Amino acid sequence: MTALKVVSSKFASEIDQELMGSKVGFTLQQLMELAGFSVAQTIQREYPLEQNKNKNEVLIIVGPGNNGGDGLVCARHLKLFGYNPIVYYPIRSKRTPFYGQLVNQLEFFQVPILTEEQSTKWVDYLKPEKTLCIVDAIFGFSFKPPIREPFGSIVAEMHKVEDKIPIVAVDIPTGWDVDEGPVAEPHTTPRVLVSLTVPKPCSKFIKPERTAHYVGGRFIPNHFAEKYGFEPFPYQGTDQVLKL
Amino acid sequence: MTALKVVSSKFASEIDQELMGSKVGFTLQQLMELAGFSVAQTIQREYPLEQNKNKNEVLIIVGPGNNGGDGLVCARHLKLFGYNPIVYYPIRSKRTPFYGQLVNQLEFFQVPILTEEQSTKWVDYLKPEKTLCIVDAIFGFSFKPPIREPFGSIVAEMHKVEDKIPIVAVDIPTGWDVDEGPVAEPHTTPRVLVSLTVPKPCSKFIKPERTAHYVGGRFIPNHFAEKYGFEPFPYQGTDQVLKL
Repeated sequence: MTALKVVSSKFASEIDQELMGSKVGFTLQQLMELAGFSVAQTIQREYPLEQNKNKNEVLIIVGPGNNGGDGLVCARHLKLFGYNPIVYYPIRSKRTPFYGQLVNQLEFFQVPILTEEQSTKWVDYLKPEKTLCIVDAIFGFSFKPPIREPFGSIVAEMHKVEDKIPIVAVDIPTGWDVDEGPVAEPHTTPRVLVSLTVPKPCSKFIKPERTAHYVGGRFIPNHFAEKYGFEPFPYQGTDQVLKL
Repeated sequence: MTALKVVSSKFASEIDQELMGSKVGFTLQQLMELAGFSVAQTIQREYPLEQNKNKNEVLIIVGPGNNGGDGLVCARHLKLFGYNPIVYYPIRSKRTPFYGQLVNQLEFFQVPILTEEQSTKWVDYLKPEKTLCIVDAIFGFSFKPPIREPFGSIVAEMHKVEDKIPIVAVDIPTGWDVDEGPVAEPHTTPRVLVSLTVPKPCSKFIKPERTAHYVGGRFIPNHFAEKYGFEPFPYQGTDQVLKL
């Protein structure tokens, strides 16, 4: 195995900006669709339904920004793959109407979206006998501590069960700094990390014996990877994820 | 094998409108990304690079509408899969700025986009020893004959080589009516048809001994399929296409 290829938070931010700039012209909707799909594909690889006869629930915790958007897309693809996703989305982003559309799509797919007001709370879904995994789609690479409420309390609950129900983190585990790793208390320790586009420096803090590491978000050409100082990843066939 | 499930052009149009309506909220960008990806995945299934050592070119003929947009997305994914796509896009749509962005993305991926003015014409790429297949992404389900220029001449050239270079048609082969099948002269006879969302009635006119039939565009929930009178397709795992 070769040394892990990572890029700094500064480069990760530059990559995003360049991909969505006027020259390249990717849209948020395109990148989010592919990123969310890659997270769903990772879950199918790690927790295939045929090996988990009596479990099919996936609880997806969605934050207010783009990391949360990836989670909303992931939920829709999981439903198509035959899973039973349940979304907890406590603070709904109004940054762009597109987030509202992602929610409409999930309602159309009959995916439950939990609110604080419901009698069945999100914690009621933390059942090891039913829940295959929890998707941590709360914060991404721009997170800075402390974790604000309600996410601090949410992460505390996730931390309590993380040895019984595996957590799949999208790009950056919650409570982790993109460069420095775990910096906030509480924080989550995922069983699976899906780095998007390229691993960030914090992925050096995961322990291989505990956490499977994937890269997803297959949307950059080879010459672009080289420009940012990392080798293109050897994705297989039409796969949208690669286990590192 | 069960009877082919098809929907009429009227229903196909209603499905599209409902998916992109305010209630469901899918965007063109999302659906096109998934549709184009499914065409690229079909090509990888039918013409895998490892079985075609000396051929890696795919010529993609792009029409002015949404069928063409699917072709532009397909080209980008093929490049990521290791193919060498070449795009011929003679009439560029100005219907939405998004088509321009899809072109920018291809330029960023260093995919050649041919124009009429170039010294190397698109027909120069019709070389059986180099070209794995031609993607027919010219017209979709709203096509009515006759085929207008320059597409009439293009289809005539495609028809001449179709026994030497296989054609992969996106949703509706060019010169075919969505309900009535081949209606215009010339028309193409594909080796592979990728029906999007659900096969249209014209797919009854393909001959199984000549044409492999796939369904792609995996983005509708089961209850929606049932509403439109067809059973959900048994896609496997995370596949975005299913061979019928």
